[in-house]
This record gives sequence, structure tokens and C-alpha cells, in this order.
Amino acid sequence: MSDNRIPVAVLGATGNVGQRFIQLLENHPWFRVAELVASERSAGKKFSEATVWRLGNDMPESVRDLVVQDYSADLQSALAFSGLPSEVAGEIETRLAANGLAVVSNTATHRIEPDVPLIIPEVNPEHLAAIKTQQENRGWKGFITTNSNCSVMHLVLTLKPLQDAFGLNKVMVTTLQAVSGAGYPGVPSLDMIDNVVPYIGSEEEKMETEAMKMLGGYDGGFQTADFVLSAHCNRVPVRDGHTECVSLELGAQPSPAEVIEAFEAFRALPQELELPSAPKRPVVVRYEDNRPQPQLDRDTERGMASVVGRVRPCPVLGLKYVLLGHNTIRGAAGAGILNAELLKAKGYLNA
Amino acid sequence: MSDNRIPVAVLGATGNVGQRFIQLLENHPWFRVAELVASERSAGKKFSEATVWRLGNDMPESVRDLVVQDYSADLQSALAFSGLPSEVAGEIETRLAANGLAVVSNTATHRIEPDVPLIIPEVNPEHLAAIKTQQENRGWKGFITTNSNCSVMHLVLTLKPLQDAFGLNKVMVTTLQAVSGAGYPGVPSLDMIDNVVPYIGSEEEKMETEAMKMLGGYDGGFQTADFVLSAHCNRVPVRDGHTECVSLELGAQPSPAEVIEAFEAFRALPQELELPSAPKRPVVVRYEDNRPQPQLDRDTERGMASVVGRVRPCPVLGLKYVLLGHNTIRGAAGAGILNAELLKAKGYLNA
Amino acid sequence: MSDNRIPVAVLGATGNVGQRFIQLLENHPWFRVAELVASERSAGKKFSEATVWRLGNDMPESVRDLVVQDYSADLQSALAFSGLPSEVAGEIETRLAANGLAVVSNTATHRIEPDVPLIIPEVNPEHLAAIKTQQENRGWKGFITTNSNCSVMHLVLTLKPLQDAFGLNKVMVTTLQAVSGAGYPGVPSLDMIDNVVPYIGSEEEKMETEAMKMLGGYDGGFQTADFVLSAHCNRVPVRDGHTECVSLELGAQPSPAEVIEAFEAFRALPQELELPSAPKRPVVVRYEDNRPQPQLDRDTERGMASVVGRVRPCPVLGLKYVLLGHNTIRGAAGAGILNAELLKAKGYLNA
Amino acid sequence: MSDNRIPVAVLGATGNVGQRFIQLLENHPWFRVAELVASERSAGKKFSEATVWRLGNDMPESVRDLVVQDYSADLQSALAFSGLPSEVAGEIETRLAANGLAVVSNTATHRIEPDVPLIIPEVNPEHLAAIKTQQENRGWKGFITTNSNCSVMHLVLTLKPLQDAFGLNKVMVTTLQAVSGAGYPGVPSLDMIDNVVPYIGSEEEKMETEAMKMLGGYDGGFQTADFVLSAHCNRVPVRDGHTECVSLELGAQPSPAEVIEAFEAFRALPQELELPSAPKRPVVVRYEDNRPQPQLDRDTERGMASVVGRVRPCPVLGLKYVLLGHNTIRGAAGAGILNAELLKAKGYLNA
Repeated sequence: MSDNRIPVAVLGATGNVGQRFIQLLENHPWFRVAELVASERSAGKKFSEATVWRLGNDMPESVRDLVVQDYSADLQSALAFSGLPSEVAGEIETRLAANGLAVVSNTATHRIEPDVPLIIPEVNPEHLAAIKTQQENRGWKGFITTNSNCSVMHLVLTLKPLQDAFGLNKVMVTTLQAVSGAGYPGVPSLDMIDNVVPYIGSEEEKMETEAMKMLGGYDGGFQTADFVLSAHCNRVPVRDGHTECVSLELGAQPSPAEVIEAFEAFRALPQELELPSAPKRPVVVRYEDNRPQPQLDRDTERGMASVVGRVRPCPVLGLKYVLLGHNTIRGAAGAGILNAELLKAKGYLNA
Repeated sequence: MSDNRIPVAVLGATGNVGQRFIQLLENHPWFRVAELVASERSAGKKFSEATVWRLGNDMPESVRDLVVQDYSADLQSALAFSGLPSEVAGEIETRLAANGLAVVSNTATHRIEPDVPLIIPEVNPEHLAAIKTQQENRGWKGFITTNSNCSVMHLVLTLKPLQDAFGLNKVMVTTLQAVSGAGYPGVPSLDMIDNVVPYIGSEEEKMETEAMKMLGGYDGGFQTADFVLSAHCNRVPVRDGHTECVSLELGAQPSPAEVIEAFEAFRALPQELELPSAPKRPVVVRYEDNRPQPQLDRDTERGMASVVGRVRPCPVLGLKYVLLGHNTIRGAAGAGILNAELLKAKGYLNA
Repeated sequence: MSDNRIPVAVLGATGNVGQRFIQLLENHPWFRVAELVASERSAGKKFSEATVWRLGNDMPESVRDLVVQDYSADLQSALAFSGLPSEVAGEIETRLAANGLAVVSNTATHRIEPDVPLIIPEVNPEHLAAIKTQQENRGWKGFITTNSNCSVMHLVLTLKPLQDAFGLNKVMVTTLQAVSGAGYPGVPSLDMIDNVVPYIGSEEEKMETEAMKMLGGYDGGFQTADFVLSAHCNRVPVRDGHTECVSLELGAQPSPAEVIEAFEAFRALPQELELPSAPKRPVVVRYEDNRPQPQLDRDTERGMASVVGRVRPCPVLGLKYVLLGHNTIRGAAGAGILNAELLKAKGYLNA
Repeated sequence: MSDNRIPVAVLGATGNVGQRFIQLLENHPWFRVAELVASERSAGKKFSEATVWRLGNDMPESVRDLVVQDYSADLQSALAFSGLPSEVAGEIETRLAANGLAVVSNTATHRIEPDVPLIIPEVNPEHLAAIKTQQENRGWKGFITTNSNCSVMHLVLTLKPLQDAFGLNKVMVTTLQAVSGAGYPGVPSLDMIDNVVPYIGSEEEKMETEAMKMLGGYDGGFQTADFVLSAHCNRVPVRDGHTECVSLELGAQPSPAEVIEAFEAFRALPQELELPSAPKRPVVVRYEDNRPQPQLDRDTERGMASVVGRVRPCPVLGLKYVLLGHNTIRGAAGAGILNAELLKAKGYLNA
């Protein structure tokens, strides 16, 4: 591969999300991993020595010998993907963005700030306009963009075509979330053998807040969408793939067939721009009674699609369906990479 | 034990629910298992030879040597507990009831018939009045009563005090159901390792129909309750214990504290009559963030209570909570036994 | 793909092994699936209508519209891959082989017959000589070859280089086997949630018998290898990937380092012939303390390698190690395909 | 309960083993929990406030209001049960024993010391004689006794009657161990969903060393038993209950029936003394093909027995069987309590 690809840094490289960034960037046509950043414990070691690789097979050859840098490092890359733990993300991402980097973050820290875009390229690419405001407000040469929490990501991706076609009034969602969302070591096995845990700290609040930001408009500032959302979040014994049971009150009262048609027809900017990581179909519909299932459907469109099924009337709110999405690909690292591709396509990366 | 206890038959004795009946009736103060009925494959054998016991430890000594009778047997007992498969339950239960037995059935077949009581003793004991109508309509000497589906049982038990105190308009429930509800062999392990299945055949319909019947009144006939219910049913990798995420619109708008107070205060006829299998508290409230959990809470009150937690406001419907209940004890065999205790206490068993 | 590939039939096409055959043959350079055979229940339907596809994503486009034939069909293909249930395999495979087909079978039925080769291409390709005897004995135009049971396959693949280098006296193996080995529905989830089952019917016997046949020589008839083997077989809650704990008494007394060297150096006929499905390394060595693991290592070499680790002294027998292999790829369908590739490379397929 | 029971302390009270001590001592006829010790994080709080109770239902009322003491506390009790983490156990247990307490420890720290008894009451009660030596050597008023690692406990309990009846030459064991053995949070769920881990740090070494000590004699010092043992240790997705596949070379060559007879006949000092926690049968034999299983058998004799099954010839070593034992009851806290009961019965507690 003759390599004039853009060199990028991965922050939090040894963690679960960091490893996914590295895995998904292997053989990426536009980006190549050039720098790795992790905590002091790993800094100064080769990546292959600092890291227990947990994604199956072996870590990509191209990163094995990269020497891990610590959090205070001055980076050469103009673009950084961040899977930093939230305790440290705020300060590090801020410093790098101030110094001129484009920071594409998967961390919750900056998501809700009033001049930081929280982006799903199929949903609210116009929010990128806030980058300019952010730079002006903060006197930064670089900037931060963020992607959402893994559970709200897939929900919003399926809500977008319905909001556009029918309007959105009320959303009720119950999640059955995979353990990989909590990182490693994450959820203890004693909580996940013959058990479910009906609680994930701050998750319900994040779903409610982030959905409102992403599905709201932008007119020089982010507008909050005007529907209400209620979430019940559960942890279940599944490795990857969040399942979500959704009931909706829409503005119009479409039939299930019309809703399915809206899902099937949904295409947006990433598909139009043919971004490398964009799924051909952002929302994929399954027609079997008992689908989607994590085991069978989480890798649909290389983990970049939301898969819906069981679209049917809801006696209480009007419409219901089930959705399933890969939480560490489209729900985390893949989301960041798609955001970075959008940034490049739109001219925000002048590396 | 000087034994003037009432001899009873267990129908479908070798199955999962049948085994639970036998386990829960061991040392029962009022009833003793005297007859066992199963399919031809088991008939004529000693129970210990016909049955693979799946409930831990060994089968009770008292039933080991009972010879299993086939479906056509004439029974000596005046009371039969039925865990028959639905394919055969209709005909067998009908024949036995016609011949004079009180049939206490866990099977779905007769639940919705207009003269068959579908009973939770804490909820609708007044529905027992339909027994007389049933006997008149059908010219039967005996009768059939039924208990509900395992997932709606616990929901209705928690809805009852709220309906009484505040009125009930709308109920949205998403279940995370244990595999024991599907019997043995039941759900294949390939569907339950690193997976959930967002569908259980007919379950959503049963929840909607049965809740309406049980929470409706009786005025010579069953009235349908006038609220709407919507269910999403999921199978998850848990052995015993259904978890349910509930959102409600009540008639009044109580605070979470008032709702908790209604749960805590709830006592009903079985508690008043001190029926042997009645839980002291039909609804038990947990106050921790991450409870109830199947592993920790399913055996509360010997599996006869519904355990609720996370009572909080719902942005869409007003109130939400999580409930957990043992699906093969209070949700099946234990429910039948409590129903039989109520029948005896109310004079319907004249054995 | 300009298609002068050899058309092949898959017998038992709707089952777990049949689906794996179809999945692995998609885009195969030498073979193309042209005919599908299954039981009467499926016969006459399009494959896409007859089959619930259980391997993730969707079934290959190329087979969706093939009409399933029943067990009595006369096939056009000259080669058939069989994943038939053992109850019917004997008769059907016999009829097809008599009629001229090369039947490559994954079923146990014919494995131990004295003129039927039980082949691992890296281990005993010389056993193919028995095909001629088989045809003479039986007056057949075609023939049957078989691959071994999934648990003994990987054991034998790792024993072969040790037998060659050091001689083999005693083998003790304890397996932790995945549920996919039992097909679908297979093992009930009630046996696999918070449980292991220390028994798999006939499995220990198969391991002992099949290993002796494959590691024995051929001198006009199969010789039984002259070592002893003892197996403990367990079912554990894993989808794919059998783990096996092995202790050995070898003829010589190599150090762990010498054993590892023998594993690392192992190459055989499929590697030499560059058969399309052959792993580059039939035995892959992991050096971490806690590997191999099913989750991380089962897809090594596209599921066609055995992965070993923890090579160390055994106080009782001299040497011990852990091995891990994909049970439905190298342990079943992939084994059959590699066998067919060997048959073609050696001129046994004259289609 | 008129309470002249002996007051005892539980060290490491908030951990998994500590909670089991408390649960099993609830309603104990000889001991009552009077003092609780844990790390600084918990010290000074009521136990109910310091502890997340993880054993189902609620913590015993009797300990809810006890104030947790820190590691440096001077205790009033004359007997302490220790479930301390190994990092701190050495120093704390030493200090308390020096000061006069009988310390009954589940921690590995002191197990192998040449004057510290490592006791299973059915196996080597004569090792208690070392207490006197220990006190003399160290100038202590109190003393330390220990129980073994959870996986070797059940193995040794089943080896003892065979050693006595037939002599013991070689033992090969492969374990499938439950996650509760690693405490909480312990094993990450990402390692235990669709996976096994073929490694537990130091476990194989502990099994080999501790078995030799317990099955060796005592003649003023501990003798090492003269057989060899080889262990493969695996972690599997089971909550409680270690399964172990055992192959043996005995001195004599008994038939499986004779071995079963030795298991069935095994009774020892705890049964003779009728110690309160002693199982009636230390080794329980199951005769079904597919037993013992964790789910069905771990609670046999209230978790205090080892359950064996599948006793059959081993082609390599002569005899093989499967065993199953509860790892946190007989394998940890229950073992300590039985040891303390033996100490009392033998006059070592003069509280």
C-alpha cells in the first residue's frame, strides 16, 4: 500500500474501544495508525508488549512495534481518535484540540457541551457547523467532535427516517445491552451468569439527553428536539450487540408497512458521499418473527447498520419494533471513524 | 405426619411444571400427592423410573414408587393439579371436571373461556363465582380453574394495588424471560449463548388478554378491564426469574413514594386467610439502584412474591419500575397451589 | 466467476453441518454447490424457504433458489458432501456411492468400516488407498470417504507431529466441548446456563477408536495404532470451539521446547499441495499463559488449524498441553472439504 | 436462642468468603458471629451499610447492625474465621494468633508452613497435633489452622477412601471451575460468555502441593504423600460448583464396583463425632450417566459433600471418575466451620 494515507493517533489505545479503532483502521483507505497513546503503565513499551489483545486472532502487524506514548505526549498526527476513559478524557482532548488536532472522541465528557458537535453522519451532519463556533469560542486551532453513547446511537439511527417522514412525539425504549459496552474487565461474571442487571449507571439519562441533541436542528446553536423519551436500561449476558424494544408515538399514523418502507428507503449523506465505512443501508429490516438477534445480526453491514424487526402496532403508543446494533462498531469505534471520514469529505481535515 | 391430608393428582407429572407441583406439595399441610398422570411413554412405570428429576437434589421419597397413570385413567382424587401440555390439556381436563374433579390448571387452554375463572387470589378471588355458572352451563359435577401465564402473573400482581389506589390507563411492559418458562428441552442452547431472542410465540397476546380478564370485575360474567397494555417479550439466558420493565399511565398522578407506599401496604385475601403458600408480602420493594435481579431476588418469599425496584418517574407515561418474579413458582406451580388453597378455604373442595 | 467448477451436492443441507458446508463452499475455487438434499419436510421447496439459516448474516445468494431434493433423489453431481443425520446416512450414502458418486461424509456411520478411509489430509493421506479395495469389495462405481468426530480431529492433528518425532505411548484427554457439535436444537439451554454436563453419548468411545484408526498405518488394510488413549468428554456453555486438556507419555522424552518446535515445524501434504482450504500452519502455538481460548482462537487460520498452548511437563505422563479447535469448521464441514480437495488433487474425482 | 454460643469474629467479612461464613454461621448451634473485620474502607460502618450482600435474599438480621472493625482491631472473640485477601492475611492472622486467638483460615498464605495444619476433618485430623509444635515454635498463645484450596478439597475428599483401601500411585485431574472461586468482581464477564479460560494462576501448583500435605501422615512433622499428581485447571461459565475429571493409578486394581463401594462406605471422624456441619455422607455417588452436574448436585448434603459419578475403567491409568463439589461451601467457608467444630470437639477451643 503506497502510503500517503493520513497518519492518525489512537488515544486510549490499549482499552476495548482503542483496540476496535485499531482493528477497524487496519487497511483503511484514508487513515493509517501512526501514534498510540495510553496511560503511564503502558507508555514507553511496544504496543505488542503493553497490550493484551482481546478482539480475536492477533493484533495487526502494523501496530505491534509502535511505542506507546503517555497522556502528556505532543503528537505529530493531525487527527486523533479517542477512546480515553472519561476521568482523563476532558483534559487531554482539550489540550490536543487547543494545539490544533482534530479530536474525534467516543468519550462522554464533551458530548453535551453547547459548541461541540455530537454527530451521526446519517442524522445531523449539519451540526458540524458548530466547529467554527467552537474554535472561535475557545481560541482553538483544532477541535473536538463526538459520537454518542452506544445505546442511543442505534436508536437515533432508526428514529431519523421516522422523524423525517412522520414526525416524532414520544419514544419508549427498553434496552438489553451487551457487556462489551462496559469495557474490560467491566461487568463481573458473577453478575452475568444466570442473571440480568436492570440498571446501567447514567445510561438512561444519556439516552434521553443525547437523542434530543442529535435529533434537534442547528441554527447557530443546537436545538433540543421536541419529543419525549423514556429509557429502561438493562445489562444482559451478551458479548456484543445491544437489543432495544421501542414503542413510539409518531406525528402521523403510518401503517407498519409504511414504516418499513421508510426504513428500507433511508439513505443519507454518508451513502451519497460513499464514505468508506458507511453501510450501504443504514437501517436493515428483517422480516422473520424472531429477529434481529445479537448472534445472527450484529455483523450486518460489517457492524455499521442498525437492524430492525417486528415492526407492528403498539396498543399504547401506536407503533413498536425491535432494533439491534453492534455496540462497539457502529456504537463506538466505527462511529468515530465514520465521523472522521465525514470531516475529511467536508474539508475539515487539512492535514 | 398423621395423614388426613387431601389426596391430589398431578397431571403432566414428569414435565417441568409437574415436577414443581410435586416439589412444592412435599410437606404441604393440606394436600398430599397421591396420583400421578403422564403420557403413555411413562404410564405403568414407577415415577422414579419414568422421570428425569431436574430440580436439584433428589425427587421426594413419597412419590418415587407411585405408579404413573396414563391420560385416560379414572382418578380417585377429588383435586387435580394440571401441568399438561396444551395439545392434550383441553380434552383431559374437561373429562375430569365433568366427572367431578376440581381441576386447577396451569395450562393456557381454558384460561379465556367465559365461564372459567382465571385467578390470582390477591387480585380477583371474586371470579370464583363463575364456577357455579360453569357447572350449570356444562352440566359438570367438578370444575376447572386456571392460573395465568407466568409473565402476566407478576405484572398483574404489581398492577393490582396501583389500579386500586390510582386507577390504571396505560401499561407498557418489556419482559426479559427465563428459559424455564419454555419447559424441557425447551429453548436450544445455541439460542441462549451470547444471544437473546426478541420473540416468544403468543406471549405478547396472552399478556394483553389475560391481564384484561384478571383486572376486570365480575357481575355474573367477566368484565374486561378498561386500560390498554402493550408487551414486548424477550427470552434471555436466565434459568428462573422473569424481569419486566414497566411504564404506566395511572388515573391519578402519584409520586414514586406514594407508589412505593401502595406496594408496601398491599395485603389481600390470601394474607388475611393465612393460606399456607401465601407470601407475607405479595409485592416486595427493593431500594437498591440495581435490583431486583433474578439471581438475588427470585426466591424472595419462597418464590411467591413479585419483587419491584427502581420506582421512578417516566417521561412518557408518568411512572416506571422494574419487577422480578419466579416464573415456575409464583408464575406456575405455586400459583396453582395457592389457587387450590383458596378453593379449599372458600369451601369449593368438599373432598 | 466463469464457472467450470465441479458441481457438488450437499446432503443434509438444512442442518448445522450442511449449512457450514454451504457457507464454506461459497466462492470455493474448485467446487460449486449445485444440488441440495434434505428430508421430506424440506423437499420440493426452495432452500431459502425450507431453511432457517443459523450462521449469521444471510444465506449465500447462490443457493437461495435451489430446490431441495429428497433423500431418494438421483443426483447429477459426481461429488456429495454429507452432513446427514446418522439414522439415515448409512443407506443413502451407500446408494449414492454404489451409483458412482464420491461421497465425502461427516457422519459416524461408515467411519470404522474396514475398507472406508477415515482421513485427515495432514495425518493419513495414504489411507486413500483403501478406496480401491472398497470399490472392489462392494462392486461400487463411486466410494465413501469420511472425516472424524470433531473432538478427535483436533487431538489427532496435534498428536501426529509428536508421534512422528517422538513416538506415542499413552494419551489422556479431557474435553470441554462446544454445543454446536450437537446440532440444532441440540443441547437444551437448561443444561447450559450455570452448568456443565460431564457426559456426551458415545463420544469417549469414538475418540478412542477413531484416533487409533487414523494414527495407524495402512498395508492393504488399516492397522490400529499401538498406543492407549483415555477420554473424559464434557459439554460446556460455549457455541463453537472445543478445548482439550492433553497429557501424554511419548516414546522419547522431549523438553517442552522440543515439542513446541515439532508443532511449529509441522507441515504436511495439504500444505505441500497448497490445497485451497489447507491452513498454512496446521498446528498454531500460542505462548500466553491463558491461551488458547474459544473466543479468541477458534477462527485461527479460518478455523482450519488446531491451536495449542501451555506446553509443559506433566508429573504423571511426562508432557501436557491445551488445544483448541473449531468444531464445525476443521472439526466437521471444513474437514470434509479439505478431504475432497485431496481427492481431487490425487485424481480420485474424475467428474 | 438462649445464647451461650461461642462468640466469633469473621475477618474479611465483606468479601465473598466472608459472606459465606456469615451465612453458614447463622443459626449455628455452637458459634455466633460477634465481630466483623474488613478493610479501612468499610471500618466504622454498620455491616449493612458497608456491604453489598451477594448471596441471595437479605443478609442475616443478626449482623446488620454490627460495626465493622478495621484490620488493626483488638478482638474480643477467642475464635476467628478468616476470609482475608492473601495480601494482608499473613500479617493479620499472625498477630491475632500470637495474641491468643484460634484463627481458622481459608487463605493460602500459611497453608504450606511446616507447623501449620492444613486440615480436612475426614482426611487428616491427626495433623492437629502440629498446633502444639506451632505454639512452641512461635511462642504463641493462639494458633492458626487452615483449610485447603477449593479445587483440591473435593479431590482429596474422594481420594482418601481410595488411598486407604487400595493405595494411591498416580492422579491426573482436569478441573472445570466455577467463577465464585475468584471472588467479586473476580472473573470478567467478557472472559466467561461463550468462552472458557484454560488457566488459573497458581491453581495447578496449589493442587499438587496441598494434596501431598493432606494425604501424607504426621509423625511430629508433616510427611509428603508418595504419589504423583498432575492438574489441568480451567475456568468455566458456572457460578458455583467445581467439576473435576479424575484418572487414577491405584496400588491395587479394584473394579469400579469396589471403588463405588469404598466411596459409599466412607465415614470418618466428623460423622462419628456428629459435628454440626458434617455431611452424613462425605462422598455421595450418583449412578446416572450424566451426573454429577453443578446445577443439580452442588447443594447435596447442604454443599458439604463431594459428589462422584461415572466411575469406570481408564485405559491409561486404570480408573476414572467425575467429581463435583460446592467450591464456596465445602470448598471454602463450610470447610473452615467444620474445622472449627473439630477444634472444639477435640478441646482446642477453651473459650
